[in-house]
Amino acid sequence: MSIAVCPGSFDPVTYGHLDIIQRGAKVFDKVIISILINRNKTNPVFTVEERIELLKEATKDIPNVEVDTFNGLLIDYMHTKGANAIIKGLRAVSDFEYEMQMASINRLLDNKIETFFMMTNNQFSFLSSSIVKEVGKYGADVSSLVPPNVEKALREKFEEPR
Amino acid sequence: MSIAVCPGSFDPVTYGHLDIIQRGAKVFDKVIISILINRNKTNPVFTVEERIELLKEATKDIPNVEVDTFNGLLIDYMHTKGANAIIKGLRAVSDFEYEMQMASINRLLDNKIETFFMMTNNQFSFLSSSIVKEVGKYGADVSSLVPPNVEKALREKFEEPR
Amino acid sequence: MSIAVCPGSFDPVTYGHLDIIQRGAKVFDKVIISILINRNKTNPVFTVEERIELLKEATKDIPNVEVDTFNGLLIDYMHTKGANAIIKGLRAVSDFEYEMQMASINRLLDNKIETFFMMTNNQFSFLSSSIVKEVGKYGADVSSLVPPNVEKALREKFEEPR
Amino acid sequence: MSIAVCPGSFDPVTYGHLDIIQRGAKVFDKVIISILINRNKTNPVFTVEERIELLKEATKDIPNVEVDTFNGLLIDYMHTKGANAIIKGLRAVSDFEYEMQMASINRLLDNKIETFFMMTNNQFSFLSSSIVKEVGKYGADVSSLVPPNVEKALREKFEEPR
Amino acid sequence: MSIAVCPGSFDPVTYGHLDIIQRGAKVFDKVIISILINRNKTNPVFTVEERIELLKEATKDIPNVEVDTFNGLLIDYMHTKGANAIIKGLRAVSDFEYEMQMASINRLLDNKIETFFMMTNNQFSFLSSSIVKEVGKYGADVSSLVPPNVEKALREKFEEPR
Amino acid sequence: MSIAVCPGSFDPVTYGHLDIIQRGAKVFDKVIISILINRNKTNPVFTVEERIELLKEATKDIPNVEVDTFNGLLIDYMHTKGANAIIKGLRAVSDFEYEMQMASINRLLDNKIETFFMMTNNQFSFLSSSIVKEVGKYGADVSSLVPPNVEKALREKFEEPR
Repeated sequence: MSIAVCPGSFDPVTYGHLDIIQRGAKVFDKVIISILINRNKTNPVFTVEERIELLKEATKDIPNVEVDTFNGLLIDYMHTKGANAIIKGLRAVSDFEYEMQMASINRLLDNKIETFFMMTNNQFSFLSSSIVKEVGKYGADVSSLVPPNVEKALREKFEEPR
Repeated sequence: MSIAVCPGSFDPVTYGHLDIIQRGAKVFDKVIISILINRNKTNPVFTVEERIELLKEATKDIPNVEVDTFNGLLIDYMHTKGANAIIKGLRAVSDFEYEMQMASINRLLDNKIETFFMMTNNQFSFLSSSIVKEVGKYGADVSSLVPPNVEKALREKFEEPR
Repeated sequence: MSIAVCPGSFDPVTYGHLDIIQRGAKVFDKVIISILINRNKTNPVFTVEERIELLKEATKDIPNVEVDTFNGLLIDYMHTKGANAIIKGLRAVSDFEYEMQMASINRLLDNKIETFFMMTNNQFSFLSSSIVKEVGKYGADVSSLVPPNVEKALREKFEEPR
Repeated sequence: MSIAVCPGSFDPVTYGHLDIIQRGAKVFDKVIISILINRNKTNPVFTVEERIELLKEATKDIPNVEVDTFNGLLIDYMHTKGANAIIKGLRAVSDFEYEMQMASINRLLDNKIETFFMMTNNQFSFLSSSIVKEVGKYGADVSSLVPPNVEKALREKFEEPR
Repeated sequence: MSIAVCPGSFDPVTYGHLDIIQRGAKVFDKVIISILINRNKTNPVFTVEERIELLKEATKDIPNVEVDTFNGLLIDYMHTKGANAIIKGLRAVSDFEYEMQMASINRLLDNKIETFFMMTNNQFSFLSSSIVKEVGKYGADVSSLVPPNVEKALREKFEEPR
Repeated sequence: MSIAVCPGSFDPVTYGHLDIIQRGAKVFDKVIISILINRNKTNPVFTVEERIELLKEATKDIPNVEVDTFNGLLIDYMHTKGANAIIKGLRAVSDFEYEMQMASINRLLDNKIETFFMMTNNQFSFLSSSIVKEVGKYGADVSSLVPPNVEKALREKFEEPR
């Protein structure tokens, strides 16, 4: 059984992520979307629990997808899940170089785990969680960028007094 | 059953190609290495028949690998083979942009076929069939770049009067 | 009056080109689409006359667009037309570097002429005349890539005995 | 009337910025240099008021240039000014990718607003406000990088006890 | 006498750095490895004193290498050492653009000092001090990435209560 | 004694090449400018003999520079000259990737030979022999791009009936 992990922050999940997840789920027996937690450097908009809920709702129609979290080394996490592949979307040259570096170090740590890069749909090639938060913060329409439940959550989040 | 096609010229196959093929064969049920023929622009060193033989010999220990040829559109070829994935090695930024363009056009032609990019081993990140031919032509030692049967074939090819 | 030249081979014009032309025509008083002729390196699919016709038909609803040809230095041509700006679409990093080199040399030759780069619509970021010809040659559907008159012309061209 | 906005931090304005502004001002009827305020992540060397003064002095000989500030979404700001174009200088590949992403999101938010990229003069292709501050901090001669009023302001700023 | 400076943070030194240093030391009469101190933005794992010790131990077999520190402008530091060349390793496109910018500004500040870029061994093209710290933190084996004394120091550092 | 080879086509030598050669000659004991001959793919404007003459004249004031030719593998040539370093100018990302590939293969062929990349002066970052020929062909002023003897030779070459 081929199990792939799709790691990320997903703060929040976008149509770009969902495109990769859906397409990966057609080839791999199981895709585990795994939220990296415990990175102290960022100031997330959504809590890990909120991100899990948003991902579960957004992927509820894909039967072989599971939502999970991890911390520490991705490779160690994969061992606990019996996963043998990593899937990542590629958008731009800057993505490419960073992801190649990550794939190299993961290959060094465990030579049997393989990273598969998938091309993000051109329509979403500019899209990132950061962009969504940046424009959502000012009330711009993000319905073409994120699924309805995320759109709603963003609106509520940015309406809250801060 | 997941069937992946690994297309290319393979003139000749290198350790960089073999790295991708071996790793792809661990995840996909079957990997078809398919030599693109009928491109009139290049002046190949090896004939298609020679390239098939070199590939077959070099991959004879990987049970789920098959060597084939195609011409015309890759997508049309994949339909005839029942393949649903394309695997490609990525080395550098210039590769990346060209391959993203190819993946886009293939996705446009058939939305159900997915391209998976795999990172070429760092050790081979500079390696290409052209480089092998360029240095092989002058008698340089290419035993760290290509499998033994290809090394032998290159030596014979460049010793032939031309 | 601001007159912009949009130079290229246009063999044939695609929706990517038309996107740039339409958007440029909203900002500049006049946009001259100018086909570079007399480059002996390529083997065009369409003659210059055919390309002019295809461009004229495809842009007939944009009043401030003109179709023309040039050879020699772009800067010399611009002087004869009283044009003061060049517009070019940018798709990828490889485009970027080549176009920056061209813009530098043009600035050196005439410091008063400015090159404006416009971003090709994401939807067409993989699109080029070469790709259209490559897939059109094998009978693939190109109706989402080129306007109807070009689609028809391509079909006729590739049905001709060669 | 074509009104272009040239957005940025301008902390402080350099000869690279001025090159783009002067050249843009030859093609557009009006160029509004607009300082993005209210970004809490950076620790500016010059206050917004100081940056306005430096820009006004440095552009006082270009009649169709105006200096302003904005916060929030650039697109919203442009609507209040009746502007229909954004002009940005491009230096390197990393600039290119970020700016393409910004141009994509702006196009999504308002399809009628166009971003025009201009090539920074080769002479200034390495130049940024950060570099100027970095070397100015140690008393290096920056007279070839910034206009005289900015050079003077930097010297005063870095002589102040901190 | 040709004296080259190899500047960096070296927090900690890796086999990638050592590859560049060893190769540079074959061409230049003397190579000064110089640790940039006093940058307040980072939170280093090793103190400057620890980094000096790790570098001295790791390079003790290369006779014409010296370990030092500097702050302020690299160019000013080089004058005090009588150095006329800078050596830097290049790994990826993102390195390249940043380093070209640095080399430009250094050339502007002192036209007689030259920057020489050397290609990092492919085997280490993904390697950085950050990656080493990231994986070392979780107890991964870094013996193929850093020399034995650094490996030991990392283990001790990450075992300390924090 | 450190002997560096600066390989290339030099058809013709430009101010970009001369900048690299002059700067390399300050650090290395001897710089051998070596013209690659026998490549059948290009249609040169100047014969090898003409290129040698143009280079000799253009570098006559740099005492430690020698002009030569080579064919076959650069590494083999370097052995015959006792050279231990290669110097190359870097302009753009596309240069970078190609040159890194070449440096990798050369390191593989002889681990004791090192490639040093130098940054082309920003002023010449767009400059290539091809550009010079392209604009020179149409009579444009190239006096800021090539030394006077090359300018004269280009004018004579393009005035000849062809």
